[in-house]
Parts: sequence; C-alpha cells; structure tokens
Amino acid sequence: MRHTISVLVENKFGVLARVAGLFSARGYNISSLAVSETLDPSVSSMTIVVDAKDEAILEQIKKQLNKLIDVITVTDFTKKEHLGRELVLVKVSCAAKDKHKLEATVKKYLATLVQCNDDTGIVEAVGDQPQIKQLLDDLGAFGIVELVRTGRIAMAH
Amino acid sequence: MRHTISVLVENKFGVLARVAGLFSARGYNISSLAVSETLDPSVSSMTIVVDAKDEAILEQIKKQLNKLIDVITVTDFTKKEHLGRELVLVKVSCAAKDKHKLEATVKKYLATLVQCNDDTGIVEAVGDQPQIKQLLDDLGAFGIVELVRTGRIAMAH
Repeated sequence: MRHTISVLVENKFGVLARVAGLFSARGYNISSLAVSETLDPSVSSMTIVVDAKDEAILEQIKKQLNKLIDVITVTDFTKKEHLGRELVLVKVSCAAKDKHKLEATVKKYLATLVQCNDDTGIVEAVGDQPQIKQLLDDLGAFGIVELVRTGRIAMAH
Repeated sequence: MRHTISVLVENKFGVLARVAGLFSARGYNISSLAVSETLDPSVSSMTIVVDAKDEAILEQIKKQLNKLIDVITVTDFTKKEHLGRELVLVKVSCAAKDKHKLEATVKKYLATLVQCNDDTGIVEAVGDQPQIKQLLDDLGAFGIVELVRTGRIAMAH
C-alpha cells in the first residue's frame, strides 16, 4: 500500500540525509519526496511517498522519525481525508499537424500548454496520481521527450 | 545566487542520502528538493535548489555528484534558459463575507480554489518563485493556516 507521510523538520544540515537514511536502512525505497521551505525559515516540510510492503515496519519507521531530535511532527495521510496533488512538466513531440490534438488533450485534463515550438510542446499539469497517470498515458501517443515531476504533496481537508 | 540543479540517478537504496550528504558536508543547505519517478522505473529524478555562497564550492559539489556511481547526469539550470515551476497548496482563513475577495485573488494568479468550507479555503497554485512569493504575500492578508509546497522543478526550453 502506498503511504504519504508528511514530516516537519528543523531546517538544519544533515536532517534530510538522516530522514532518508531511516527509510533506506529498512529497505524502504522512497517513491517520491518533496522538501521545501515553510513560512517559518527555521522549519522545512518533507512529503514522503513510500510503498509499504510491511505495515509493521512502516510503524517502526514512523516511531523512529518521531524520535529524531530535529523532527517536529510526523503525519501519515493514509487513513486521513486529504487533498493530494503533484505537478508535472512534460515535453512532447508535436508536429504542427498534431497541435490541435495536443491542445484537446491538454484541455481535457485542465492542463496548460506552456510552450509550443515547431516540433515540441511543454505541458504543465497538476493532479492526483490516477489523473497524472492517465494524462501521461494519453501524452504517450505524441511521444514523451522529457518528464519532470515534483512528487506528491498533501494537505488535510 | 540561487541555483537549480537537476540530477538523474539510479533508483537504488541510499542514493538520496548520499546526494543530500554531499551538499550538507560542505555546509550547503538545500532550499528545496523534489525527487520522483521517471518513465524508466530504474531511474529517479532529483531537482535541487541551493543558495551558492561560493560558486567554486558549488562547482566541486557538481564534480563530486558526477563521480557518484549511481548518478547518470547533472544539469545546472542557472545559466540555461529554462522553465521553472513550483506547486503550492495554501489553506487560508476565509469567512463567508471575504469569499469574493479570496476568489478575486485566486483569479489574479490563475490559481484554483480547490475547497471552501465555512471558515477556510484551500488554494492550489503553480508558478515560478516570484509569482508564488507574491501570491503568498497577498494570501497573507486572509491569514495562512497551512502551507505545503513541492519545491521547484525545471525543464530546458
């Protein structure tokens, strides 16, 4: 099962490596991670997405996160109602004759065609994982040249 | 000067901690970091934003990144034309009487009012750093209850 865990940490050297290390030490690969500043310059926010093969081990990781001196709060969104969103930038091949088709796909997903050259276009889209997956499947028909994604962030309702 | 560096890495345990460790070992605090999957399941993408106090040290870090066995490519977008974007979710206080004002602010930034309860609203917005900063300044007038951001991702034009 895929878990989204949000961790508020003191913005200090090495905290990121320590948090990431807790997961990797137990063979938990992080699917995505978004670390950024908050309104308080001394605090950073980390949103971690992991596939939990064993819920008991994940519980252990969460307990150990809570014990780290620079960790302020740990929130597991899995059983909480929340809003989940990710941003992707997708560069796709797009010949002039296919431009209308690309525009229609972009419109369908309420995405934005940020840039359109002679042969490529950059699509910017926000959504939760199923929507982004569907969009990438549809854009695959044009040929995806490059993809950058932020990883998921979450907020309780 | 603020640098945006993109690193493609083999999706293996511990790579994230090693990359983060290279920065913190030299006293470089990471402002934001976005790690996510790519179309190739064996490859992850990391977008790192750092404030370079000393360009020479940053050059050293980039060289050392390139030497890490699991690092595939390192791109510094600082001197490259590129598109930079970040996603933020902002929960703001919003009494019914201020809802129109909030809607106007959201519209100004081409943002989305995802949810609106009796007393709070969640705004979803995408932009580059100056736009997001301006939006957060404007939303500050309503009272920011909670903020989650993805960190910046970048794509060459």
